[in-house]
Amino acid sequence: MYDVVIVGAGPAGMTAAIYALRNNKRVALVEKNVPGGVIVNTAFVENYPGFTKIEGPSLAYAMFEQTTKLGADYIGATVTGIEIGESFFTVKTDGESLRGKTVILASGTAQKKLGAPGEEKYTGRGVSWCAICDGSLYKGEDVAVVGGGNSAFEETIYLSNLANKVYLIHRREGFRAESSLVDRVRQLKNVKMVLNARIVEFFGAETLQGVVIENTLDGKTDRLAVKACFEYIGTLPSTDYAKDLGILADNGYILVDKNCETAIKGIFACGDVVDKDIRQIATAISDGAVAALNAIKYCSG
Amino acid sequence: MYDVVIVGAGPAGMTAAIYALRNNKRVALVEKNVPGGVIVNTAFVENYPGFTKIEGPSLAYAMFEQTTKLGADYIGATVTGIEIGESFFTVKTDGESLRGKTVILASGTAQKKLGAPGEEKYTGRGVSWCAICDGSLYKGEDVAVVGGGNSAFEETIYLSNLANKVYLIHRREGFRAESSLVDRVRQLKNVKMVLNARIVEFFGAETLQGVVIENTLDGKTDRLAVKACFEYIGTLPSTDYAKDLGILADNGYILVDKNCETAIKGIFACGDVVDKDIRQIATAISDGAVAALNAIKYCSG
Repeated sequence: MYDVVIVGAGPAGMTAAIYALRNNKRVALVEKNVPGGVIVNTAFVENYPGFTKIEGPSLAYAMFEQTTKLGADYIGATVTGIEIGESFFTVKTDGESLRGKTVILASGTAQKKLGAPGEEKYTGRGVSWCAICDGSLYKGEDVAVVGGGNSAFEETIYLSNLANKVYLIHRREGFRAESSLVDRVRQLKNVKMVLNARIVEFFGAETLQGVVIENTLDGKTDRLAVKACFEYIGTLPSTDYAKDLGILADNGYILVDKNCETAIKGIFACGDVVDKDIRQIATAISDGAVAALNAIKYCSG
Repeated sequence: MYDVVIVGAGPAGMTAAIYALRNNKRVALVEKNVPGGVIVNTAFVENYPGFTKIEGPSLAYAMFEQTTKLGADYIGATVTGIEIGESFFTVKTDGESLRGKTVILASGTAQKKLGAPGEEKYTGRGVSWCAICDGSLYKGEDVAVVGGGNSAFEETIYLSNLANKVYLIHRREGFRAESSLVDRVRQLKNVKMVLNARIVEFFGAETLQGVVIENTLDGKTDRLAVKACFEYIGTLPSTDYAKDLGILADNGYILVDKNCETAIKGIFACGDVVDKDIRQIATAISDGAVAALNAIKYCSG
């Protein structure tokens, strides 16, 4: 029996582990991929205080090492469901089942991808899903943003302060984004909207050099020279295993109170999987600490 | 004119600076002490993800270096008030005044004092609030630590490596500190816990020679011969400069919404100075990121 079973070993889950372990709790971290979450796919992290610039995987490893030194049990498995017992929870996986007095859900999100050729090759080498993380690597360069929602527009505004030119590529003419955001982007001189267009290929050498776009009306293709392409076509919360628990918002993210507790007492959630506005390493580790400290309270209570 | 004037250069303020600077904002950090806030006075930090164990001042310096490389203007001054103008704020200090489109308050907390007779006389002559600053002055001597929280226990561990003997004085028998810290202190042979006790007097000659303690159960007093006494009994918000702004809770901490914005549009707050439950480096840097990202939005709006 564990005191805390943590689902997902990204920054939020690993921080929760650090706090729980330092309180002498028995902790399992269940992760289907390598530990680190989103940061494993980030070339360089420059917005995590204490590290001026660190490779994403290095930061992930530092956190992983910290948790293992404290005694975390890592379990490589995919969580398939959670059973609510009288005095403990059972976390079911595609391998062994784990029993915990408390459960902390930190399963994060998966980014929607375009799926065009070259996308995988240039991931971390120009293709990115995080302007705030990677934008400053492309100061003074031409970059592209893909999408038509608030995120695409917000990140376009963010990038317009850094990049020489931002192409905002969207497959239609209408936007889901708020009109105030659209208006602001329209006033930015270094932003060019490329509408009714979709990316059909990413090209380059060692790093991204550009994208091939296809006009969705006439089928013509064109090349855009960009050093980076930021995709904001949506994220999906990784919450399939929690669908029947009644703790999800309509958008699939997990609803929590200010103590990071869900509607089920003893089940907490933290990090990107939580229904909230800002998803950063900084906000994830805060959630992780808050969730763990409240899980510790729950164990003592 | 700055885009963002940040009051206080602890982890929250420095994180806000990192986020604002990475968005090409002009940022001033006003700090009356050395940068780093509480962590400057912390021997070792072991619960900040990414660093298994780091000296507090080293972590502070890493964050300081990160902000200066990004172009932060550090201003060594004490903030005395904030004036709300039509289109900008004026941050008044004991030196120059600073104008900012937005202001982020990250002024943290100050350590509480016991208030017992002799405390003021022996401040800097044995009475201290910073084991890491002053501990090495008392190598091989007997010293005291007062308090029952994480800080008291962490600094006791630190001092046990330097001093001949450490008395850990606490007014109750129970501790707020994490149990792992309590367990570690219990194993230290040169630490003696003095429980249900409070200091009623500091005595000495030119420098501190000891403290008079009173047993809180039977009222008996006793003398402990110590050359230094380190107080870790809690904190007070550093918000004197903000008293007239109408943004403080009754306890003196600053009230913010989930965007870290105060009741005054354009003035944000983050870190330990905010009215909240959990004060950790992890939660401070989250606030800092949230405050800065919303300040950036405010600048663009």
